[in-house]
Amino acid sequence: MLELTFVIPIAGLAAIAFAGYLAWSVLKQPTGTDKMQEIGDAIRQGARAFMKRQYSTIAIIAVILAVVFAASIGYSNPMLGLKTALAFGLGSAFSAISGYIGMHISIRANQRCAAAATKSYNDALRTAFRGGAVSGLAIVAMSLLGVSLLYFAYGWGQADAKDAQTEVVLSMVGFGFGASLVALFAQLGGGIYTKAADVGADLVGKVEAGIPEDDPRNPAVVADLVGDNVGDCAGRGADLFESTAAENIGAMILGAALFPYFGAAGIIFPLVARAFGLFATIAGVLVVKTREEEQPMAALNRGYALTTVLAAVFFAFAAYIMLQPMAGNTPTASDLTWVLYFLCGVTGMINSLAFVYITQYYTESRFRPVQEIAKASETGPGTNIIAGFSVGLEATALPAIAIAASVLISFKLGDMTGIPHGGLYGTAIATMGMLATCAYILAMDTFGPIADNAAGIVEMAGVSGDVRRQMDKLDAAGNTTKALTKGYAVGSAALAAFLLFSAYLEATKITSVDMAKPEVFIGGLAGVALVFLFSALAIRAVGKAAWSIIKDVRDQFKEHPEIMQGTMKPDYARSVDIVTKTSLKQMIAPGLLAVLTPICIGLIFRVVVITPGLKAGEPLGATLMVGTIAGVILALVLNTGGGAWDNAKKYIESLPSGKGTAQHKAAVIGDTVGDPFKDTAGPSLHILVKLLSTITLVLAPLLV
Amino acid sequence: MLELTFVIPIAGLAAIAFAGYLAWSVLKQPTGTDKMQEIGDAIRQGARAFMKRQYSTIAIIAVILAVVFAASIGYSNPMLGLKTALAFGLGSAFSAISGYIGMHISIRANQRCAAAATKSYNDALRTAFRGGAVSGLAIVAMSLLGVSLLYFAYGWGQADAKDAQTEVVLSMVGFGFGASLVALFAQLGGGIYTKAADVGADLVGKVEAGIPEDDPRNPAVVADLVGDNVGDCAGRGADLFESTAAENIGAMILGAALFPYFGAAGIIFPLVARAFGLFATIAGVLVVKTREEEQPMAALNRGYALTTVLAAVFFAFAAYIMLQPMAGNTPTASDLTWVLYFLCGVTGMINSLAFVYITQYYTESRFRPVQEIAKASETGPGTNIIAGFSVGLEATALPAIAIAASVLISFKLGDMTGIPHGGLYGTAIATMGMLATCAYILAMDTFGPIADNAAGIVEMAGVSGDVRRQMDKLDAAGNTTKALTKGYAVGSAALAAFLLFSAYLEATKITSVDMAKPEVFIGGLAGVALVFLFSALAIRAVGKAAWSIIKDVRDQFKEHPEIMQGTMKPDYARSVDIVTKTSLKQMIAPGLLAVLTPICIGLIFRVVVITPGLKAGEPLGATLMVGTIAGVILALVLNTGGGAWDNAKKYIESLPSGKGTAQHKAAVIGDTVGDPFKDTAGPSLHILVKLLSTITLVLAPLLV
Repeated sequence: MLELTFVIPIAGLAAIAFAGYLAWSVLKQPTGTDKMQEIGDAIRQGARAFMKRQYSTIAIIAVILAVVFAASIGYSNPMLGLKTALAFGLGSAFSAISGYIGMHISIRANQRCAAAATKSYNDALRTAFRGGAVSGLAIVAMSLLGVSLLYFAYGWGQADAKDAQTEVVLSMVGFGFGASLVALFAQLGGGIYTKAADVGADLVGKVEAGIPEDDPRNPAVVADLVGDNVGDCAGRGADLFESTAAENIGAMILGAALFPYFGAAGIIFPLVARAFGLFATIAGVLVVKTREEEQPMAALNRGYALTTVLAAVFFAFAAYIMLQPMAGNTPTASDLTWVLYFLCGVTGMINSLAFVYITQYYTESRFRPVQEIAKASETGPGTNIIAGFSVGLEATALPAIAIAASVLISFKLGDMTGIPHGGLYGTAIATMGMLATCAYILAMDTFGPIADNAAGIVEMAGVSGDVRRQMDKLDAAGNTTKALTKGYAVGSAALAAFLLFSAYLEATKITSVDMAKPEVFIGGLAGVALVFLFSALAIRAVGKAAWSIIKDVRDQFKEHPEIMQGTMKPDYARSVDIVTKTSLKQMIAPGLLAVLTPICIGLIFRVVVITPGLKAGEPLGATLMVGTIAGVILALVLNTGGGAWDNAKKYIESLPSGKGTAQHKAAVIGDTVGDPFKDTAGPSLHILVKLLSTITLVLAPLLV
Repeated sequence: MLELTFVIPIAGLAAIAFAGYLAWSVLKQPTGTDKMQEIGDAIRQGARAFMKRQYSTIAIIAVILAVVFAASIGYSNPMLGLKTALAFGLGSAFSAISGYIGMHISIRANQRCAAAATKSYNDALRTAFRGGAVSGLAIVAMSLLGVSLLYFAYGWGQADAKDAQTEVVLSMVGFGFGASLVALFAQLGGGIYTKAADVGADLVGKVEAGIPEDDPRNPAVVADLVGDNVGDCAGRGADLFESTAAENIGAMILGAALFPYFGAAGIIFPLVARAFGLFATIAGVLVVKTREEEQPMAALNRGYALTTVLAAVFFAFAAYIMLQPMAGNTPTASDLTWVLYFLCGVTGMINSLAFVYITQYYTESRFRPVQEIAKASETGPGTNIIAGFSVGLEATALPAIAIAASVLISFKLGDMTGIPHGGLYGTAIATMGMLATCAYILAMDTFGPIADNAAGIVEMAGVSGDVRRQMDKLDAAGNTTKALTKGYAVGSAALAAFLLFSAYLEATKITSVDMAKPEVFIGGLAGVALVFLFSALAIRAVGKAAWSIIKDVRDQFKEHPEIMQGTMKPDYARSVDIVTKTSLKQMIAPGLLAVLTPICIGLIFRVVVITPGLKAGEPLGATLMVGTIAGVILALVLNTGGGAWDNAKKYIESLPSGKGTAQHKAAVIGDTVGDPFKDTAGPSLHILVKLLSTITLVLAPLLV
């Protein structure tokens, strides 16, 4: 039954090799005019300087946490403490490395995409998309290889029995925590940077100095382009690395609980499913090409459709081979167990489609919500903001229904297998189904900032109008893919939530989280308050960092009036340096809040016990569960509201008499408000939600 | 031990009589100049027309619900169905009557306050405050009398035993549901009306036509003044009627669980505590007077301090008499039981102070948050909105800590009594302590809109500058009291939440709400999504209703250009009529959503049961609990954000070069955004949270 295990290393290595081939095929492209090379160099320098400083900060925090956790867990169980710390180190390192690979390519692909655009539209699309695919494949493969490596290392010589296997998987949870810690700070730092640079460059450039976007006279313009890379590329990459790692481990914990029925196959199935997903993605990436007159989304969607179909077929095959209950152990098990579990996977895939369509409805200009915001802009910025905010609030209901239906259906299908606790495993498999196409989605997502950057380079290099229009088409497609991926990321976080709750219960050996106990009620309250305070800090951080860059640009204009006359080059590096420093400083407070709150709740209620019989893990369980629900819902508000404001502005700009009117000005203000919502706080919340899961899993041994 | 029961009817009737005296003393005041009388008449007509239409709509919904609930509960238990329906009818009727009394006086006190201001500042203050006190006393007394009446009627001839008494109290829960249903629609309808009229009048008057606020040429100006009455007076009155009723009944349910230890005294104690609170309030109201040079808040605070001290003393006395465990039944009970429970009451009082101070910190211009918003306004409306929103998000953390501390401390104190389940009763008593000064708080709150209205009447009647300045002082004090009451209302909702959760568990006979079951997880998710979708609908409703009045004002200006020249009176009644119709239409969708969601969750999961052993009440319990936490937190965001934006605008206006600058314009936009947050969605959320409690209690017999 374990015959498919060999697929895991093959898929991981094949994906890395294919990513290497794609990287080679991107890097061999011409690098464009001297002007383009100069701008590309400036972006690369800025991004590298930011990453270096950011990784140093994260490394310090990670080392401190590793020591603290190793010591506290090791106090009662030295071996577990050591294993957790090692897994944590490996998770952080792999996350950082895969983030670095993604960035390394994207800050080179942007310039080559710009250069390609001067010759062929198809070449430009392929360069940007293949650059994105390097990230997608490398990240998912690294996560898969890391988790598999740990499982085989820690499991070496362990008994083939339920308890021993459960212990093995539980000793791996540090990997997920390391990944989410790096992801949290990467997304926070990058998200603050990108929006501070964006808002700062716009406010002082467009509004105060009256020069167009991406104008080379604006000292903040390179910082803005760097921001696309460090915020969007590195941030989302770290997010999905973390998702795949944490959800694999969570599913493996639930698989271990079913050891009597599936043996090790139940534990390994999630990894095999992910491995097959990589093959499907490779095939999908290979078919992406376009004709000159075609819309870029059509080409990307073709690849996505192929990936999805292949992933579903592979999923069925893996379920058929691996998810057959062992004879004798489960007289009640259905013969159709593998079919039922395959249908769980399909449920997850349908859920990801549902999220994509719901996101489209709320953020595309052809539907009611964005139209409503555009109309409200007629009466000024006040009504624009009110309308956008109410769209964001409204956009939580349908996703909640989709999640509820997916959890219920996959639980029911799993329950119908007749295997004890089979329902829970069904929700885990639905999550695996949803994540099967993850690498392709990530490729589409990273395509966005590369195209965006390339458009900026073309503009700054002063290339003629026709190329610019082609680039705008790519840029618009990038905006769409970015919005859809955000929907996908939050959808997977929500669906995975339930699986991770169950893994936590399994790890803390508690059977319920009872909100009617005061300590548990307070744990839940703390979870919701954490989510809101964290968002406040993230949003405020953008304001503070933006101030610093605004001040610098004003200073540069004042010190050297020649800059505005175009006779002197502004000091791009100075602006980049300042926003780097302030945004990294600003990421500390929300980051530490996210890490320390669950630790405090966990430890306080180990000591403060009023309700007789309270289990130490219960209050923290409520923080996890209620905080996750609130976090997912608030992330939906911020992402969707932000996206809708953005597209309402673009819609008004597309009207014949749109630009420059009072209505347009109102919509621009709405877009400014939406920026830190959708690109800083919202995406950071996805990660906070998953950090809650991994940190509570790591804390579990202290709460048993 | 029951000797104190006689206090309840005496206090209720004394409060009504005293309210009657205050009403008489207000009504005998002169009604001012002809101009004032004319404006006063217009406001009265508009308010009456609105209330009439609103109550008819609510009556239809209430009758339908009464029949449905009576039939479904009566199907298995005819007597309980009948009692629930009767209690529901009584609760709705009493809520409507007390709302009517409050409005009846406030729409007369406004004009008399304006008239008094032309002679004496002290008279103006007293008229406005006494007008408010009529509401406060009448509402709390009606709620107390209604609940007591029901308890004595339904309890007549019932055995003096735990089960019988529990059944009696459970058959009363319809009263709370009736009260919260009326409150929900009153606050929604009134809140939509008041902000639609306000935003509409401002946008079309100040911004388009360039005339000052409260200018008699603006056709929407009377609608704006009517809005203060129907939104702020009637809305908050219904809110607190509902709070006192629902929390009394919830506390009585928990008291019934302790029947073996306190007998009926434990059930009646909440009513006695409320009765004493009324006496304390009467004393507090009597001492409110001011000198010409004094700030009005000083006078109001003196009365509040006296009320609080008296309430605490009475509370200790009542605890001493009533909360002594019966000898023999509880060998483990502490001799200091009554002291411990008195300290629970003090904990509640301190919690209400904490909420008031936290609200002040976040909404007064002398502290960091409002200063930050004012500074952010320098760079335009976008940064103003971002700063205000992040203040709102941040303002959730301290209240969450205050609630957590209060629940934990009062639970611990109650637990120290040594009485089984004594901890839970401790949290109930803390809530009683917090609500002891409720009538006084409500008087201060209703003072706000009366003073606001009087200032408007003085302006419209063209009275000279000095009187106007006196009125502005009163108006400013009114804004402060309104903000503080909102903090108090949300604080009491949060503290009461835990008590109401426990009452629900008691009523559904379940012992836990376990979030690790998929059905329960979905129930929790539905609770959070309900809170967000409800807010979206409430906020959007304001936009829609505002559009209707903007259109009407534009039409009036176009049809009769003489209006702007001041030679023709605009048709105030037409604007009033239009905004009445649209806002009542807009209240239906969010109102029904709030009522139907818990019903659906309750009924769906009676049928759809996947987890073996799931109790029918569990998923709905999660909707209640998680929805309540999310609702309280979101209400804090909306109320505090709105208040902070408002005061940032006022702060900028108070600067020497404030008005008319770009900074001021940005702050005005922030204020417009905050208006529907703080006066429509936020206050409606308080009620939604409590409606969740009462509707789940009413549904409980169907879920046992």
